[in-house]
Amino acid sequence: MRFGLFYEHQLPRPWGDGQELRLYQDALDQVEIADRVGFDYLWAVEHHFLEEYSHSSAPEVFLGAASQRTKRIRLGHGIVQLPPAVNHPARIAERIATLDLVSNGRVDFGTGESSSSAELGGFGVRRTDKRAQWQDAIDAITRMFVEEPFAGWLSRDITMPPRNVLPKPVQKPHPPLWVACSRRETIQFAARNGIGALSFSFVEPEDAGKWVDEYYRILASEECVPAGFAVNPNVSVVLPMMLHEDEATAIDRGIDGAHFFAFALAHYYGPTPHDPGRTNVWEEFLSRRAARGFSREQIIANAGTLNVNVGSLRGAVGTPAQVIDLVRRYEAVGVDQISFVLQSGPNKHEHICESLELFGEAVLPHFTEGREERDAAKAERLAPAIEAALARREPARTAAAGYRIDEDAEVARAHRSRDIRSASRRRFRQGFYKLVHGRSDEQIERHFGPAAQRVFFAGMARAFDPSAAAGFTGELEFCLTRVVWTLEIGKSRAHAHPGPAEDPALTLTVATADFLRILAGDANPASLLMDGRLELRGDHELAPRLSEMFGGPSPY
Amino acid sequence: MRFGLFYEHQLPRPWGDGQELRLYQDALDQVEIADRVGFDYLWAVEHHFLEEYSHSSAPEVFLGAASQRTKRIRLGHGIVQLPPAVNHPARIAERIATLDLVSNGRVDFGTGESSSSAELGGFGVRRTDKRAQWQDAIDAITRMFVEEPFAGWLSRDITMPPRNVLPKPVQKPHPPLWVACSRRETIQFAARNGIGALSFSFVEPEDAGKWVDEYYRILASEECVPAGFAVNPNVSVVLPMMLHEDEATAIDRGIDGAHFFAFALAHYYGPTPHDPGRTNVWEEFLSRRAARGFSREQIIANAGTLNVNVGSLRGAVGTPAQVIDLVRRYEAVGVDQISFVLQSGPNKHEHICESLELFGEAVLPHFTEGREERDAAKAERLAPAIEAALARREPARTAAAGYRIDEDAEVARAHRSRDIRSASRRRFRQGFYKLVHGRSDEQIERHFGPAAQRVFFAGMARAFDPSAAAGFTGELEFCLTRVVWTLEIGKSRAHAHPGPAEDPALTLTVATADFLRILAGDANPASLLMDGRLELRGDHELAPRLSEMFGGPSPY
Repeated sequence: MRFGLFYEHQLPRPWGDGQELRLYQDALDQVEIADRVGFDYLWAVEHHFLEEYSHSSAPEVFLGAASQRTKRIRLGHGIVQLPPAVNHPARIAERIATLDLVSNGRVDFGTGESSSSAELGGFGVRRTDKRAQWQDAIDAITRMFVEEPFAGWLSRDITMPPRNVLPKPVQKPHPPLWVACSRRETIQFAARNGIGALSFSFVEPEDAGKWVDEYYRILASEECVPAGFAVNPNVSVVLPMMLHEDEATAIDRGIDGAHFFAFALAHYYGPTPHDPGRTNVWEEFLSRRAARGFSREQIIANAGTLNVNVGSLRGAVGTPAQVIDLVRRYEAVGVDQISFVLQSGPNKHEHICESLELFGEAVLPHFTEGREERDAAKAERLAPAIEAALARREPARTAAAGYRIDEDAEVARAHRSRDIRSASRRRFRQGFYKLVHGRSDEQIERHFGPAAQRVFFAGMARAFDPSAAAGFTGELEFCLTRVVWTLEIGKSRAHAHPGPAEDPALTLTVATADFLRILAGDANPASLLMDGRLELRGDHELAPRLSEMFGGPSPY
Repeated sequence: MRFGLFYEHQLPRPWGDGQELRLYQDALDQVEIADRVGFDYLWAVEHHFLEEYSHSSAPEVFLGAASQRTKRIRLGHGIVQLPPAVNHPARIAERIATLDLVSNGRVDFGTGESSSSAELGGFGVRRTDKRAQWQDAIDAITRMFVEEPFAGWLSRDITMPPRNVLPKPVQKPHPPLWVACSRRETIQFAARNGIGALSFSFVEPEDAGKWVDEYYRILASEECVPAGFAVNPNVSVVLPMMLHEDEATAIDRGIDGAHFFAFALAHYYGPTPHDPGRTNVWEEFLSRRAARGFSREQIIANAGTLNVNVGSLRGAVGTPAQVIDLVRRYEAVGVDQISFVLQSGPNKHEHICESLELFGEAVLPHFTEGREERDAAKAERLAPAIEAALARREPARTAAAGYRIDEDAEVARAHRSRDIRSASRRRFRQGFYKLVHGRSDEQIERHFGPAAQRVFFAGMARAFDPSAAAGFTGELEFCLTRVVWTLEIGKSRAHAHPGPAEDPALTLTVATADFLRILAGDANPASLLMDGRLELRGDHELAPRLSEMFGGPSPY
């Protein structure tokens, strides 16, 4: 078991002069303590525009500063947002490598897709694009670390000519990779990509155990095709923490922070309206916490047992004995790391420092004995599977000598590919939408003869994204007007054929015209379902994932 | 006079294991010394893909680290590349503010346009766009510092909805602004924008004096419309340095570094071909240095006088007495800061450390007495002009309350504006090019009747960029086939009218068809000039700037 410290840099309103300065300076003092008492990881998030919830928008700078206040602790990005509209992939590779140089090889490279509306809307990232952008960017960035020179890139979202991206990281082939996870599906996704799972949702030990088992099963299977040039087999969970020998004092000092964290998370990741610069999340928290299940009184009444249910979120707010017990439960199910959030909501600097010292004295020593040996044994056990997995990853490329930097041609190519992309997307969307919008069922269906059917279903099969299928394999059956089509979903690809399925996991019955309206964005499947114009038979849970599986919008 | 230390993080080939690590760790040690002995500024560049010349691609991380190794020295970005394809403006505002927080308000925010082919081609930035992108981005970024919330942006290159960009910098309204300058025109540009001029070319004291006079004249005039919400009246020059009591030792230790710096600069900013990952700049330097005027022998032969001509580049490589004398010459002409480059080429860490200590002991004390008083007097002297200049800047906006983050609408808007921009640019270029390409003179001229003429010349006048005109005002006359047009260039705008000029500064005589071919990118003015198809009368030096003045490609 390894222990981390996790920073959002929260700052509830009202904001006074100098509070952000205090926030950052205090955090650096805390990090110095954590390093001294034996914490293994410091994680800093990258969030943008999430007032009160996270003022950690440039973690590369904070971690750079932390590198000179610490000696041993690892410095983790938890996470870097990979959509190219937020961070250019070369800029990411450069800052990770530079941080690795100033910290003498202590970087962990956590990655994510970005997912709050404030961030996606702020940077103009389509929710439907972000998964693909993550996959595209991680491939490019890890190549920038190992290819000398990076042989260039031409994808829908990234165009870059050959360049030697400098500097290179200290750790070879590159710092350990992680990905932000919040659900079982994303943990599986991490395993398929051979990278650490940084779970940011508060999960009970028993559920965490199921995730861990599945993670390691997939990681050791043929499903694992590493996203990087090294595999990082680790599962980490996050918990709020405040420690004191007296339980009531621990709760008094830490519970508002833990609750505000969860409340503000829900605020930014749910449908709550937000007026930038004006919405006061702290006031909303005060007036609604009880209704949302964040009752201070209830926690105090139930003291004595730690409960990490989000509903009555308490996490590791308690005595050393309670926290030792809680950590043991996570350890027992195979969780590799727990990262603790102490700096949250109104939690006080001096209480955080006290808790860190107490954790180092009273909790940490219970988990260090034999840790190196256990880690070594784990590495040995996984070595053959990791070797096999790495053989499945496309290798680093060796660019042919003789390339010459040619600014005019390179710039023209970058702009041409942008122009073509946007033009073809626009044409397709507009064309298809025009074809169905305002037309009668008969008019639409007239266009959907056998040739058009083949094109559409083949297109869906081609657009299939195994990561969105979350391990599902089987048949999806589409009963349209006078015609039935089946999509066979395999592990990594899908195949379309006309005719009924043998054993459909899910059957959708819908008029051809409505089916095409859904695809063109002219009808909402939920509305059709409610109107009885769309019928589902079989595994209903598959339905909400369909759009995403075939390149449509993701619900998360 | 203030003193700075300037870092490119150079690393000549061949590269051994661990050399980049050493480079960065040594630099942090050096910075600690510089802070202790009394240097005022640490500057770190942002360069991408410039192998050997600069491995400083993520200065935000290095400066973050340096913030915790130092107490007083200011931390300067020298410079941040502002084209949005390199760095999103919000990401820049965030990292500048975060650096200001971890350093307790010690940031100087240097900016630039990016200008090597390796960088512009690597990020797909058009040379013709970068000046406008600088102006656009600096306006947006400084507003992100002061507007709460930032009221949003919609320009050709930046689309962003209202957001509160966090955190805010410690220094109010924001850290001092600078811009990279390499020529007299860009120094004037800095003055017009009310920001510090970071001159990166090696300039003799006497020339520097002319620049300084012009800079302060413009800064105090009505031409100055500040780019930020504060004015930073400062001119800084850069010099290579190596110090030793024995002159021959100083030269021996420092001259290769100084020469390599200049040679590699010319390599990346000139037409020299570069094969990423393969071209060995250090070897090219060794074989060509003498031919390029970087002769070690000549410097030794001419020892005794410091000469900062680029041709025999020596800068501040010498004894304390020599450097004191050199600094006095810059001080006498009103230069505010000299930044010294010690880490360059093969210069050794221990020699750099020795030089820094010696500078602190033997040079610096000669320039500190009365410095605070002089700075205060300067501030007082400039205060009325600065106040007047700030009144000319468009003020910070106050966004109306009631905005609601709306991901779908915001993302759609961002993509729509991208699509429209690229489509309209493409249409214009393609349409115009098609109109002239492969056509005879007669065919082209048939399209250029009086109506088309008005449109074209009015368009040129509208596209006029005063910053590219570098202070020129006067008439430009275009003698085409059977028709003459004149562009009157004023301080801030241009006006077109048919007919001859009264007193043209420059007259271009060219066939209408060739003129249109130039505008459409179908003919090269230099070739036409050589073929005698384009004639220039008047101030020939204006000609190379014409393209840039009307929104065409810049030569720098």
